[in-house]
Amino acid sequence: MNRILALTGALLLTATATAQVFDETTLEVAGELREQALGSELGYEITADLTTRIGNRLAGSENDARAVAWAVEMLEGLGFDRVWTEPVTFPYWVRETERVAIVAPVEQDLVATALGFSPATPAEGLEAEVVMFDDLAALDAAPDASVTGKIVFIRNRMERARDGSGYGPAVQARTGGSLVAARKGAAAIVIRSIGTSTNRFAHTGVMRFTAGSRYVPAAAISNPDADQLERLIALGEPVRMRVTIDASINQTYTSQNVIAQLDGATNPDSIVALGAHLDSWDVGTGALDDAAGVGIVTAAAQLIAGREQRPDRSIQVILFAAEEIGLWGGRAWAEAHGDEVARYLVASESDFGAGPIYEMTAKVADDAMPVIEAIQAELAPLGIAMGERGGGAGPDFSPMMAKGLAAVRLRQDGTNYFDYHHTENDTLDKVDPEAMKQNIAAFAVFAWLAANSPVEFGSGPGLVD
Amino acid sequence: MNRILALTGALLLTATATAQVFDETTLEVAGELREQALGSELGYEITADLTTRIGNRLAGSENDARAVAWAVEMLEGLGFDRVWTEPVTFPYWVRETERVAIVAPVEQDLVATALGFSPATPAEGLEAEVVMFDDLAALDAAPDASVTGKIVFIRNRMERARDGSGYGPAVQARTGGSLVAARKGAAAIVIRSIGTSTNRFAHTGVMRFTAGSRYVPAAAISNPDADQLERLIALGEPVRMRVTIDASINQTYTSQNVIAQLDGATNPDSIVALGAHLDSWDVGTGALDDAAGVGIVTAAAQLIAGREQRPDRSIQVILFAAEEIGLWGGRAWAEAHGDEVARYLVASESDFGAGPIYEMTAKVADDAMPVIEAIQAELAPLGIAMGERGGGAGPDFSPMMAKGLAAVRLRQDGTNYFDYHHTENDTLDKVDPEAMKQNIAAFAVFAWLAANSPVEFGSGPGLVD
Repeated sequence: MNRILALTGALLLTATATAQVFDETTLEVAGELREQALGSELGYEITADLTTRIGNRLAGSENDARAVAWAVEMLEGLGFDRVWTEPVTFPYWVRETERVAIVAPVEQDLVATALGFSPATPAEGLEAEVVMFDDLAALDAAPDASVTGKIVFIRNRMERARDGSGYGPAVQARTGGSLVAARKGAAAIVIRSIGTSTNRFAHTGVMRFTAGSRYVPAAAISNPDADQLERLIALGEPVRMRVTIDASINQTYTSQNVIAQLDGATNPDSIVALGAHLDSWDVGTGALDDAAGVGIVTAAAQLIAGREQRPDRSIQVILFAAEEIGLWGGRAWAEAHGDEVARYLVASESDFGAGPIYEMTAKVADDAMPVIEAIQAELAPLGIAMGERGGGAGPDFSPMMAKGLAAVRLRQDGTNYFDYHHTENDTLDKVDPEAMKQNIAAFAVFAWLAANSPVEFGSGPGLVD
Repeated sequence: MNRILALTGALLLTATATAQVFDETTLEVAGELREQALGSELGYEITADLTTRIGNRLAGSENDARAVAWAVEMLEGLGFDRVWTEPVTFPYWVRETERVAIVAPVEQDLVATALGFSPATPAEGLEAEVVMFDDLAALDAAPDASVTGKIVFIRNRMERARDGSGYGPAVQARTGGSLVAARKGAAAIVIRSIGTSTNRFAHTGVMRFTAGSRYVPAAAISNPDADQLERLIALGEPVRMRVTIDASINQTYTSQNVIAQLDGATNPDSIVALGAHLDSWDVGTGALDDAAGVGIVTAAAQLIAGREQRPDRSIQVILFAAEEIGLWGGRAWAEAHGDEVARYLVASESDFGAGPIYEMTAKVADDAMPVIEAIQAELAPLGIAMGERGGGAGPDFSPMMAKGLAAVRLRQDGTNYFDYHHTENDTLDKVDPEAMKQNIAAFAVFAWLAANSPVEFGSGPGLVD
């Protein structure tokens, strides 16, 4: 078979598959939802309201409770059939103050942020000579004697990429640095921010936390400050630093996952789950991370709720608690609903800003692939291609994926996402209202079609890796 | 006369004028300096060294003294004939801490910076309702009763422009706001930052200061925070704010203008003055403002000092003290040298970052215009056009211009300058090394040719406006 024939055959197959999956009315509604979303301001308004009325909302803070109350009220006003909350309990880490300064050869204050779950230093701070490492592996490989009593500086740089693939390798310094530094007897650890901007913002974020493990105080400095520190070290004189952190891990706090459901017409016990997280870091107003996600999935579901025709299956919007400090909301949800994983047809979270969605990935059973292809055909007018098979549903669904949850990801362009991620600079003006509409259109089309899927997506033990 | 003939005539006139002004050898050296500058790293190295070894250097701080010592040593190492300092005395304002927070309808910390010479608030801060004005004129026109006891918020936005022309209208809120607010009985004043970036940095800067005048505590909030405050006010509930500033004006401090001279061969008592300022704000490392200027004018003069052939006149590099807090260095210099203004052929300062120079302006006597045109002809290969006649020499030379100093300005593209101006984010990575080379080439060609000018530029009472 020559190439043209093969191609024609493939196209015919796709067309046939599409025709078989959804009836004309369902496809017409998908097209209407797409157009409606592109003309609706609701998603941006939700994002603006959350970031303006509440602002930042660190898990466990007063604003956490305010955000939960805000979410319940907001969802109740949007025509869902039911809105409820489910408890999420976690240790509450509180940042009071942090200061990182070079004290020799010259005094310079650096722009810094303590990492989530960092212990405090003594009130007067910890002062020591700085020892620099290329990355976590280099620290791990270093003789203890070269580290003991010193302040470790890890300088690895995050690479910019549309899919955010620079994050994984670089973030090891943040998640694991304090533990390794503690094991080697360091006084404290300071890392170059896990972020791509040259603006002078420090990027906070959580470190791997296990109660009882030994940690040293940990902070990130902004990228220009990391450059400055490298230049000073290169001058050859010993560089000394003082790290002063006041922070504490308090007794546990119970927040809430907030869930809204639109009941399906014919198969309401089968659920398409759309997720985002309601909490944010205590810096910035958590606009891209993740008020935008809250706006996107809520507006997408609301567009469907506003139509006369119900989808066959139910659609849930799940706004997770305490994502930033360790996926506590996602873990609580998987714990509570793990035995009913098969009820969840598929899940997809928006937690990567609001850049244009360029690709759809799916981890579903073979039988569901024609449905996925039919959905992608309706996303294609939005510029969304079919990605490689596999992938996740977003961070908050990962604990449930470990129990076999089928996953779709609508992948946002994250080229600039890590310029703002976990910084003071994650504010509403960083959200592009036009790109957000495309996101909402994609989630609405996906949710509508998935909720009318004639086949299951395979959620259950068969999808566990 | 048709257009082509007119153009040819103009070109011939220019060519003739150029030919008359400088001899071939002088022009050849100008061309060589231009090429040398484009290949030299010296300017950037100076900028990197100052910002790395010293960092920020607020007038009166410990780093001010360090910067003076650094400058003397740096200039002595570069082949000038003489390096000396001249005293500059000024009141020393010290920022300790500042905090601006919305306290109702919801608590939100804002990114803020106290303005230079702001008085302190009580230790517990000042809390009051916010009253918003479009600009300083609107505040000035408001009934006192609408302002008394409140915290004034002025929301005027600076417009972006290549020539920085958005700064003047907007900065009135900063320079005059505290005085007007005090007159009307306000508790404090908070302004939208005078800057063009949407990044969350507050732009500091000085307010008009007269000992004995009545001020209220004054701060600028970042532009995203100003947006947030406007959105909260638009929600309709009263917005209350708390401003807490710890700052003080101390006894006077004496810093130094640092001056280096390259002696002229035939007319050493006539001087071409190149300026920049050595001090910076206490936020950022003062890279664009004005370590870049220090690098540019020093490297330009050093290129000339490094040649066998001396210019006819002397060239001075003047690194001014205490520019940021009110042109104290420039005023002291004009005070000390005002009676010898005629000795200064012309002056030009680099204090607008290091964007590409696009235009030359000149305020000189009519007789000097052919020389200016001949200089511009040698700058044209760098992309530098002739601007309108008039203009200044840069802020530090303005007090001497009031005594008749002739002025040239090599105008940098300032489109992005006010994204960084007076913020924590003014760090070395914001300086473009390639654009800086073009700047140095322009200053070197200008200084060399001006120092070989066959005519005076008219410095003296005749040039006073």
